Amino acid sequence: MDIELISLTFEDAASQIKSKALSPVELTQAYLDQINRFDSELNAFIRIDPDVSLAQAREAQEAIRRGEYLGPLHGIPVALKDLFETKDIVTTAGSLIRRDYVPKLDCAVVERLRQAGAVLLGKLNMHEWALGVTNENPHYGSCKNPWGVDRITGGSSGGSAAALAANMCLGSMGSDTGGSIRIPASLCGIVGLKPTYGRVSLRGVVPLSWNLDHAGPMARCVRDIALLLACVAGYDSEDPFSVDKPVQDYVGQVEKNDVAGWRIAIASDDYHNEVDNEIAAAVRKAAGVFEELGARVEEVDFSVSRETARASGFILLSDAAAFHQEHLENNSDSIGKDVLSRLRDGQKISATRYALARRSGMLLRRQFIKFFEEYDVLLTPTTPIPAPEFGADAVERARLLTRFTSPFNLTGLPALSLPCGITSDGLPIGLQIISRPWAEEKVLIAGQAYEDSTEWHKRHPAIFA
Amino acid sequence: MDIELISLTFEDAASQIKSKALSPVELTQAYLDQINRFDSELNAFIRIDPDVSLAQAREAQEAIRRGEYLGPLHGIPVALKDLFETKDIVTTAGSLIRRDYVPKLDCAVVERLRQAGAVLLGKLNMHEWALGVTNENPHYGSCKNPWGVDRITGGSSGGSAAALAANMCLGSMGSDTGGSIRIPASLCGIVGLKPTYGRVSLRGVVPLSWNLDHAGPMARCVRDIALLLACVAGYDSEDPFSVDKPVQDYVGQVEKNDVAGWRIAIASDDYHNEVDNEIAAAVRKAAGVFEELGARVEEVDFSVSRETARASGFILLSDAAAFHQEHLENNSDSIGKDVLSRLRDGQKISATRYALARRSGMLLRRQFIKFFEEYDVLLTPTTPIPAPEFGADAVERARLLTRFTSPFNLTGLPALSLPCGITSDGLPIGLQIISRPWAEEKVLIAGQAYEDSTEWHKRHPAIFA
Repeated sequence: MDIELISLTFEDAASQIKSKALSPVELTQAYLDQINRFDSELNAFIRIDPDVSLAQAREAQEAIRRGEYLGPLHGIPVALKDLFETKDIVTTAGSLIRRDYVPKLDCAVVERLRQAGAVLLGKLNMHEWALGVTNENPHYGSCKNPWGVDRITGGSSGGSAAALAANMCLGSMGSDTGGSIRIPASLCGIVGLKPTYGRVSLRGVVPLSWNLDHAGPMARCVRDIALLLACVAGYDSEDPFSVDKPVQDYVGQVEKNDVAGWRIAIASDDYHNEVDNEIAAAVRKAAGVFEELGARVEEVDFSVSRETARASGFILLSDAAAFHQEHLENNSDSIGKDVLSRLRDGQKISATRYALARRSGMLLRRQFIKFFEEYDVLLTPTTPIPAPEFGADAVERARLLTRFTSPFNLTGLPALSLPCGITSDGLPIGLQIISRPWAEEKVLIAGQAYEDSTEWHKRHPAIFA
Repeated sequence: MDIELISLTFEDAASQIKSKALSPVELTQAYLDQINRFDSELNAFIRIDPDVSLAQAREAQEAIRRGEYLGPLHGIPVALKDLFETKDIVTTAGSLIRRDYVPKLDCAVVERLRQAGAVLLGKLNMHEWALGVTNENPHYGSCKNPWGVDRITGGSSGGSAAALAANMCLGSMGSDTGGSIRIPASLCGIVGLKPTYGRVSLRGVVPLSWNLDHAGPMARCVRDIALLLACVAGYDSEDPFSVDKPVQDYVGQVEKNDVAGWRIAIASDDYHNEVDNEIAAAVRKAAGVFEELGARVEEVDFSVSRETARASGFILLSDAAAFHQEHLENNSDSIGKDVLSRLRDGQKISATRYALARRSGMLLRRQFIKFFEEYDVLLTPTTPIPAPEFGADAVERARLLTRFTSPFNLTGLPALSLPCGITSDGLPIGLQIISRPWAEEKVLIAGQAYEDSTEWHKRHPAIFA
């Protein structure tokens, strides 16, 4: 096992691959070794196919030798949440029903990653159908948090976050319907971006809720997020929810890392009744970093009501019940108890409730658009608590964990989570940076500026100790 | 009464007002006289306030005398479907519950019409809450068709269409949720445009279904439609469903009236099983006119399934039930039998059905976007039957009348209806012209080209005989 190889950042690995100083095969092998070493304990992967990965790596290596370098993802080992459909590779969506389901086509995201020459390491653990709340997948086992294996990774893209935190891949794609990219990013001390709704194609991504689902990149630093986003962002006429808006030069934009003169809002103290003190303090300290960088930071009232959380919940469960209609009729025995009960709840919701929930989402989105005419970005904690232990009250925990994330699914705004501290228990703290629709570059610039001034993203989880 | 004055087109009246040859007061008085003469029989107006209208006209006249001419709507008498909220003027939405409801603010459309100097003649009859199917408003009486007073005007903007057909106003605004602008336009031999979803602000328009409602202009010729649209189109940050897209120069665009080289699709014969022969023939003849003008006309399969119609219906009734939740709880005695029964149906719909209906709308919209990459516009009949007599089977009739219109509420595409013939019974036939999202100028150019080649829009209804 080559510790140095797996410690390389995406960017460094890419530049060494480009200059032929590093071979994609070597790099892939180093990652497979790391998976081999740590994954029996963490259970981040549902599936690996080392031969397939190494064959891809060899192909990348040969192309580069022939002078056909495809760009910064060429030869880079990535892994995918197991709801991104992969041609000829089983895609379970964390479910028993799809245990043997082999897609005939790659999803749009995988098409783009392959075109960019990325090497696919494997498929990552997740909540059943992305819907569980207990974080214990009844079919593929629980994924453990590298910062403490008695703790959850946060769902539903927990496998992606654990694999990144334990250096078992260089980049990952997750999906986020109520916080499922940002929450595990926060709980596992890595970086995750939920882009604007419609920014990344959902074609071939197993849906949880068409109206709240977002595919997005997860990685170990902001620059890596920008590299992945640049690959996967853009209009797809085959995805009815994709929106035709110009894509920014995300990689170029993060290099600016300059927030001087920005107006930055931070959620004011009235949210603290449900935020751990250490986390509130870390976010306030992060705001101080932005001030030192020349931004003007102002406290604002961030009272996203319980009504909003309820609206998200109604939409999520209704859409999920609609998608799983046939499974509920014919395969309910193959659905875990927890997910089945939530889907049944979804079936009971009336169109009236759902219509009002969708409408309140539109109204909230418009409020935030006005808000972001005044401010460049908004800061909140990603989660009000650090990674809880397995077995605590799952429903209440899910409510807490999604408190700051789900409003931005309902409104479709871009939101980044990145590490901003460590609790006295040694657990990572996540900072959430939000901006207006289509302003992914804003959250990336702010994230990069913060990361360049701090070292939190370089801390290692307990599993390496 | 001055027949010559009320026979002026919008454009001619505007140019005479501009040159001070015609006084807005004279013109308004002529229209009030016409209302006085015909409306006791037609019942197109729920409310007129002659003193208020004449005061507005005098104000317009004086401004113009002072050299403060505001543009082509200045001093022009228009009337509004009674769901556009008007400051200090009762706005009933055709309901008993709002019989005495006096809005504190103008809706966005009225704000713009007032800024442009238009004179408001009165508030027009409509289906109760825009939702009836029988066309007999139980609270304000039935509106009669000027082409045959034993016939319906078509809903729900029937008052607008009847008032225009009987020369009781120069322009009107209606709203269209399943065809409510285009159907009465077709049945009363006038022109009506349902713009793209999000093009005209719905702020202050009493909703029927937030997701299907469109406000749009109704008039006696295409040029007048362009003048009205130019006034009311544009983004409104206060309407959460308004979309920020550039507005075209509609008035300038219709002057082009050139369709040479266009690819025009016409719905093929398989829709004829439910289209009256005379109507199918008139639409085919209209297609021939476009060919003579140099367009390439092709038959296409237009099989918008019954499933699509069902999807529209689920959304419409669910949204309506959601909006009327409180009325259903506390005021159900004040709701007409027909509307009450439809709202109760709406309350029974599940979120699953609704979510799938919304999704199928998104998929259909995407299909049409692809379709309009090939074709400039699509032609269909507006309605497969001419104006029926009162009392025929209302539910089956509503299904027939909305067959060609409701798919474009579900998909949000711009659709124009204009006269294209007269049946052997002496009833007007409507041609529907549809294009891709935001291409209002396309349907207007095609409509203008057709109108310039034919005389159908100049035919007079039976009531003038």
